[in-house]
Amino acid sequence: MANTYKPFAPLVERIKKDGVCLDGGILKVDSFVNHQIDPTLLQSMSIEFVRRFANKEINKILTIEASGIAPAIMVGFLLNVPVVFAKKKKPSTMGDMLVTEVFSFTKNKSYSVCCSKDFLHQGDKVLFIDDFLANGNAAKGIIDLVKQAGAELAGMGFIIEKSFQHGGDFLRNSGFQVESLAIIDSLDNCQIKFKGE
Amino acid sequence: MANTYKPFAPLVERIKKDGVCLDGGILKVDSFVNHQIDPTLLQSMSIEFVRRFANKEINKILTIEASGIAPAIMVGFLLNVPVVFAKKKKPSTMGDMLVTEVFSFTKNKSYSVCCSKDFLHQGDKVLFIDDFLANGNAAKGIIDLVKQAGAELAGMGFIIEKSFQHGGDFLRNSGFQVESLAIIDSLDNCQIKFKGE
Repeated sequence: MANTYKPFAPLVERIKKDGVCLDGGILKVDSFVNHQIDPTLLQSMSIEFVRRFANKEINKILTIEASGIAPAIMVGFLLNVPVVFAKKKKPSTMGDMLVTEVFSFTKNKSYSVCCSKDFLHQGDKVLFIDDFLANGNAAKGIIDLVKQAGAELAGMGFIIEKSFQHGGDFLRNSGFQVESLAIIDSLDNCQIKFKGE
Repeated sequence: MANTYKPFAPLVERIKKDGVCLDGGILKVDSFVNHQIDPTLLQSMSIEFVRRFANKEINKILTIEASGIAPAIMVGFLLNVPVVFAKKKKPSTMGDMLVTEVFSFTKNKSYSVCCSKDFLHQGDKVLFIDDFLANGNAAKGIIDLVKQAGAELAGMGFIIEKSFQHGGDFLRNSGFQVESLAIIDSLDNCQIKFKGE
């Protein structure tokens, strides 16, 4: 399938205006994505996800707590489908569940991601939504959970992709429809270089 | 101020239908509140929060990650104001911040809740939104953060309050406008007893 990249201009402009590039390839967007959220931008980004996955049948949104919840909720609201958030810790009250391990480069350790079998199962057509795509390890964990459940992954949508960490290459080469609203090719020397500019 | 309790019928009915009462005073609502979220219910609850705080000037929604994010996002969207989520771990990239300690009875330990000073400051009129009100320790932490910031707490909205853990008594006696969409008086013997029934 085609995976032509179309930058979502309102987000790219906002990153240019308010994004802060820190040493070590870190892009700080906490004033509008992951600590404080701008509801107008969130709505416009969520509508854009709906447009980009308009070709797909979707009956459930899946994300990982915590910073994926906001865009996932808004997309689920627009599509009127349930939103499931996979958890990073097994809740004491959770019954039968699906579990996978995700290695975090940032934290240099693995963590478990789990989801109740009650909320992800055969027949589900799942859209995964998250804030960042970097090396793709969280996305790979989601692919594993969806596979364990016997469900189908309709696509994966990310607010910001860091192409230089190559998770997007892996996911697209695996045949998934991956839609990133902004792709950043480099953060070298604390300069934000967007794909296609 | 008056704090007359009005149960929000669609939520009460849903708890009766899908809530599960477990030993130890635990109410499991993960099929529609905190693991899988029903977008229609979420929207109706969020509109109800907007109605209940219609008397207040609000320029910011505040919540604590992770399970408060969904209702906070939806209320922020409806009111078109920014949503800030206080974090349970200090992000490595966060600059100057406000920090408070919250004791969790469930986990029998304290954790830090923090918020960047950039997103909570003097002049803010803050509505705190969360999924559960039990002993009120998280809410007390939020009161402390808002006070440290020199901001004003316009009110506190909770999806479900467990009145038998008395956090609501403390908050209302302290003069805050507290709005809970469903109040549960007892979970003894794994029976859900709603206030006023």
